Amino acid sequence: MSEAKKAVVLLSGGLDSATILASAVAQGFHCYCLSFDYGQRHDTELKFARNLARELGAKEHRIAKIDLTVFGGSALTDHNLEVPDFAEHGDIPITYVPARNTIFLSFALAWAEVLGALDVFIGVNAVDYSGYPDCRPEFVSAFSVMANLATRRGVEGEALSIHAPLMHLKKDEIIKKGLALGIDYSRTVSCYQLNDEGAACGRCDSCGLRREGFVAAGIPDPTRYQLSNP
Amino acid sequence: MSEAKKAVVLLSGGLDSATILASAVAQGFHCYCLSFDYGQRHDTELKFARNLARELGAKEHRIAKIDLTVFGGSALTDHNLEVPDFAEHGDIPITYVPARNTIFLSFALAWAEVLGALDVFIGVNAVDYSGYPDCRPEFVSAFSVMANLATRRGVEGEALSIHAPLMHLKKDEIIKKGLALGIDYSRTVSCYQLNDEGAACGRCDSCGLRREGFVAAGIPDPTRYQLSNP
Repeated sequence: MSEAKKAVVLLSGGLDSATILASAVAQGFHCYCLSFDYGQRHDTELKFARNLARELGAKEHRIAKIDLTVFGGSALTDHNLEVPDFAEHGDIPITYVPARNTIFLSFALAWAEVLGALDVFIGVNAVDYSGYPDCRPEFVSAFSVMANLATRRGVEGEALSIHAPLMHLKKDEIIKKGLALGIDYSRTVSCYQLNDEGAACGRCDSCGLRREGFVAAGIPDPTRYQLSNP
Repeated sequence: MSEAKKAVVLLSGGLDSATILASAVAQGFHCYCLSFDYGQRHDTELKFARNLARELGAKEHRIAKIDLTVFGGSALTDHNLEVPDFAEHGDIPITYVPARNTIFLSFALAWAEVLGALDVFIGVNAVDYSGYPDCRPEFVSAFSVMANLATRRGVEGEALSIHAPLMHLKKDEIIKKGLALGIDYSRTVSCYQLNDEGAACGRCDSCGLRREGFVAAGIPDPTRYQLSNP
């Protein structure tokens, strides 16, 4: 790429989004990272996101404050619901936040339009999150079609691309990809119920997937857990 | 309709959204109205929205607080930009808020999923707002396709419908439709720069379209203007 292009990167502070940020930076994009303060159970992950943006070479990082607790309906935003322990399942889990990726991508689209960016990166993954409707390739394709009809640039004929480079990777493949890009995964958090110090519960779905990923990759797991031996 | 169905209705407090709410109620829907506190120049319209929801028979009204000022880029959210006077134009105006309808519909989608609603109403209109990419029928169709891939119900085979019943109506036709439904349009606001008492500027695009609509409909304009004779 001779001239640097701008990209909006959705950054949660987790393993997946850190990997897409490192990947987009390595591809030469000038990365504008977007995180959300959306009433999640802890805001520790936003501190991790801020640090990751700086350490991985983002041009800018913004946090949009949006209220998803107004509707409830998910264990991640409704504090009366319990986050379940890790288990294999094919159904849609209670940690699914209704329309969350649609909302996140809509904000990314807005910022992309203001920035003049034609590329948006999102770390969704259909392998680990088969139970989340908005983590599937057909969702990302349909969002992309809609996005190009929704915006000024789309109307003027400049196509916006939604990149989901982790879509078909297993967690160990994502970890290996990230390590090759130089990511220190101890600087990322995945847990649905982090404590204030950023230590993971070791029991929720997200912790389970992450831990299995390091095992499968044959890499020591650098995650700080709340329990001595989860 | 034998059993009342739930619908999410996007309600701004303006003429168009009041009309779709009255129309959805008349069709027998139980209406759950959603408004946004999004850093607009005035929050007077939220008071009008609250009153309209009550007066027109909504089951519930919620206001989601979201930060669109984080990106800027529109005269409606960037307080450093001036709202221009009413003028005929084919270009995309500065009052266009990037991806606003995409964001609003995404929130409606989230609430619909939590409520178990399969119908969402939005008052977009392609006649008056031809310059806004996200007010066109092809945008609404594409959003609908995406929405059905994004959500639990869509995946389970229950199709969600996005209704945009004003899409092809001229302002005077909307006004006549609303009057037939019993709407008191003095209880609605359209102005981009209302004052604190809810009086309209009489000069912005939105005021211009509204005023012309009443003239074309041959109906006295009940709007309260800041100027004695705009």
